[in-house]
Amino acid sequence: MRRADPRWQLEVVGRPESGGNTMRLANHLWDRFGGLALDDIPAEARTVAGQCALDWFGCALAGSREPLSGILRDELGGQAGPCSIVGTGLNCPPGVAALVNGAASHALDFDDTHSMMGGHPTVPVFPAALAQAQEMGASGERLLVAFVVGVEVESRVGALIGGAAYRKGWHSTSTIGVHGAAAAACHLMGARNEQFAHALGLAASQASGLKANFGTMTKPFHAGHAAERGLLSARLAMRGFTSNPEAVDGRQGYADAAAAGHEAVNWQRLKEQDGRFLIEDTLFKYHAACYLTHAAIESVGRLRPQLAAAGVSAGDVEKAIVTVHPGLLDICGIPEPKTGLEAKFSLVATTSLAMLGIDTTDTGTFVDATLDDPEVARMIDRVEVRTDRGLGHTQARVELRANGHRLEEFHDTGIPATDLEAQGAKLAAKMTGLTAPLLGAEASDRLRELSLGLEAVGDVRELC
Amino acid sequence: MRRADPRWQLEVVGRPESGGNTMRLANHLWDRFGGLALDDIPAEARTVAGQCALDWFGCALAGSREPLSGILRDELGGQAGPCSIVGTGLNCPPGVAALVNGAASHALDFDDTHSMMGGHPTVPVFPAALAQAQEMGASGERLLVAFVVGVEVESRVGALIGGAAYRKGWHSTSTIGVHGAAAAACHLMGARNEQFAHALGLAASQASGLKANFGTMTKPFHAGHAAERGLLSARLAMRGFTSNPEAVDGRQGYADAAAAGHEAVNWQRLKEQDGRFLIEDTLFKYHAACYLTHAAIESVGRLRPQLAAAGVSAGDVEKAIVTVHPGLLDICGIPEPKTGLEAKFSLVATTSLAMLGIDTTDTGTFVDATLDDPEVARMIDRVEVRTDRGLGHTQARVELRANGHRLEEFHDTGIPATDLEAQGAKLAAKMTGLTAPLLGAEASDRLRELSLGLEAVGDVRELC
Repeated sequence: MRRADPRWQLEVVGRPESGGNTMRLANHLWDRFGGLALDDIPAEARTVAGQCALDWFGCALAGSREPLSGILRDELGGQAGPCSIVGTGLNCPPGVAALVNGAASHALDFDDTHSMMGGHPTVPVFPAALAQAQEMGASGERLLVAFVVGVEVESRVGALIGGAAYRKGWHSTSTIGVHGAAAAACHLMGARNEQFAHALGLAASQASGLKANFGTMTKPFHAGHAAERGLLSARLAMRGFTSNPEAVDGRQGYADAAAAGHEAVNWQRLKEQDGRFLIEDTLFKYHAACYLTHAAIESVGRLRPQLAAAGVSAGDVEKAIVTVHPGLLDICGIPEPKTGLEAKFSLVATTSLAMLGIDTTDTGTFVDATLDDPEVARMIDRVEVRTDRGLGHTQARVELRANGHRLEEFHDTGIPATDLEAQGAKLAAKMTGLTAPLLGAEASDRLRELSLGLEAVGDVRELC
Repeated sequence: MRRADPRWQLEVVGRPESGGNTMRLANHLWDRFGGLALDDIPAEARTVAGQCALDWFGCALAGSREPLSGILRDELGGQAGPCSIVGTGLNCPPGVAALVNGAASHALDFDDTHSMMGGHPTVPVFPAALAQAQEMGASGERLLVAFVVGVEVESRVGALIGGAAYRKGWHSTSTIGVHGAAAAACHLMGARNEQFAHALGLAASQASGLKANFGTMTKPFHAGHAAERGLLSARLAMRGFTSNPEAVDGRQGYADAAAAGHEAVNWQRLKEQDGRFLIEDTLFKYHAACYLTHAAIESVGRLRPQLAAAGVSAGDVEKAIVTVHPGLLDICGIPEPKTGLEAKFSLVATTSLAMLGIDTTDTGTFVDATLDDPEVARMIDRVEVRTDRGLGHTQARVELRANGHRLEEFHDTGIPATDLEAQGAKLAAKMTGLTAPLLGAEASDRLRELSLGLEAVGDVRELC
């Protein structure tokens, strides 16, 4: 391992200490998660992890039919190997599987999100863990535990530095997720502290992905990139590849380069998560658009019966005012969407679709033809987006004005579900809706049950 | 192509215009270089390009024997394909060749550098272009022109945003180089403006690599990463993959995320390079350590005869004071190097070796055993590094104190050679020294002549 530079030691004063030694991020994380076993994970966290797996397969299968997935298969799918490209019957090397499956599962932007991680937690981690587990012929239990480790690690890296980096333009799903992918793969391979530290340092040097590419094929690519590069980092570290174990949190590391600097790293926030399983905070998507458009959609869903009760049709609405945090404008503020993909990142479009009662849970809604509908275009012209710094990113207020009426609703999609059984049922229905048309009902049902019961699967190669 | 967001259009006011349209970086670059042919390139630039190729093969062959190259081959070398892993006889897919050859060629940190690009220009670009050209069975002329295009593009991206990003902790060889790799591969495949723009946007989302990893295997990995990801970006864009063509210079793009912001992009500096071939500014290395240690080594080289004339031996020197720009401390300021690799990034070590007359042009000098030599250790204790903001990064002042004498010399390694013939002879000798022990004299001579005469090679598959 790289010898600690004495100049750097001077600067770690103020970090919480563990066992008398100055804390470094890599050791802090692997002390807690390197030896994690199924029995260490609370039942709720295990349930959510299975739901993440279920939802991931649904998104990956549906996403495998998107043009970007076809392009990636054409470019990379020619190599043989032990890992599956989900939804295709193709087998390939682990890195290719992680990349293609990672991108496919984020293609519809329908996969889960996580506030502390700051992006989509499952798409960078699960495909990396799945590919590694498939190559090893590991059990579902080992895959599930490794996946939980990946989410716990990426959420903590996100807690430390993700917010500042995201504001600058970095896409956390990729830049934070790559560390989770490395951690999950390290766990499957039984990495020691030092090996994990080198994997993390190597992953930090491959953390990339720009928000400027939102609304293009490159956004889903980010998830695959993070999965593949995290997996590669772990595999190289296990073979003896070296990096600086402080490449995230040290001088001239990721916190300096991409966030607010290594001295601004929020160690207290990390310490506060001790003993928690952050995977329990996963938020799932039931509308096929950017998560930050959902609060407005849900608000409209509550306003529509009120409109009807007042005898007002959607066509009579003169103005709809959507108020959100100003930070959302860089993420889902496309003002004049012309394609289905752009509509997913456009509050005016998603709100208009909800106003018109068009099914936003259906991925088929977000196609270019929807934007050509004159009724949709007219509604978009009547939606105005306003900003309020007092709102959280997952909150929205919607006010409708029609025939002298003023109706208003508020929603916050940032609160994790407490009824996990109900959440599981909703996710099972979503997954069936995405996969039954592709696989047939029987295969869809089988994959759903295997995913939800992942910890009981004897060999992950049964999955796909 | 992604529709231009009207909000972004507002912000490009102040950029130089071309043909009545607002300039975007991608179109600006491809208007100039997309159709470049051999006859468009001045003789001096062609000569330097051939010297870059020569030097690259020397570094790649010698670097292929380094442990990190072996680890990468073990992990990735199992796939068959049309491209060579230099120095091994292995053939593999283009991406694997670009990654493994890129890392190998930077393993010794002995490859060329470029002030405006802000790092090592050839190692991210040449292996990407070579792999693509090998797969296509292209001529040496096409490879040479594509390589020049890659260097011109990366140097201009570096001129725009590289300095600010480097200071934050980004390793330009990778973060800037990935754009050059994409450009070179695009040129070989005949990309149109729009395809190049998508390749550039996709490359920007894979721009990564941290200076925290200097002194570890991950630094050379950066060069391979950039080569592979730039090549992949070009190949995907040619298949129709989309990105935001303003992902370098637009809102929430690379300039925002990694540098001083898109509004601080220095368009004037870009315009000033019009008509120039920046490859002519390539600087070559003759010492096997970080380029920024060379000015001090050269100064010592001039001081040693003066010491001898004064009857003072190196062992009598009481103190050596090396004065450099303070920015060098993050790059080559390791104060107590213990390994050969660390010694390459340690001004106290490189200066000590030069003081003792140990051959710093020999890669074999930079091994761990050298640091165990008590004479070297004693000399390191007598070298003091001071900083002076008035110096450039490629400049150093060295003062020696011994027996009442005070001697001082200054050197600047940042000035490109004007005698290209002499430069070629020095590089040929360096390349022979690196490769003859590995290939034998005959094969080494053959590769040297093919590289220097690259534009006359009928099919690049003759090279390796």
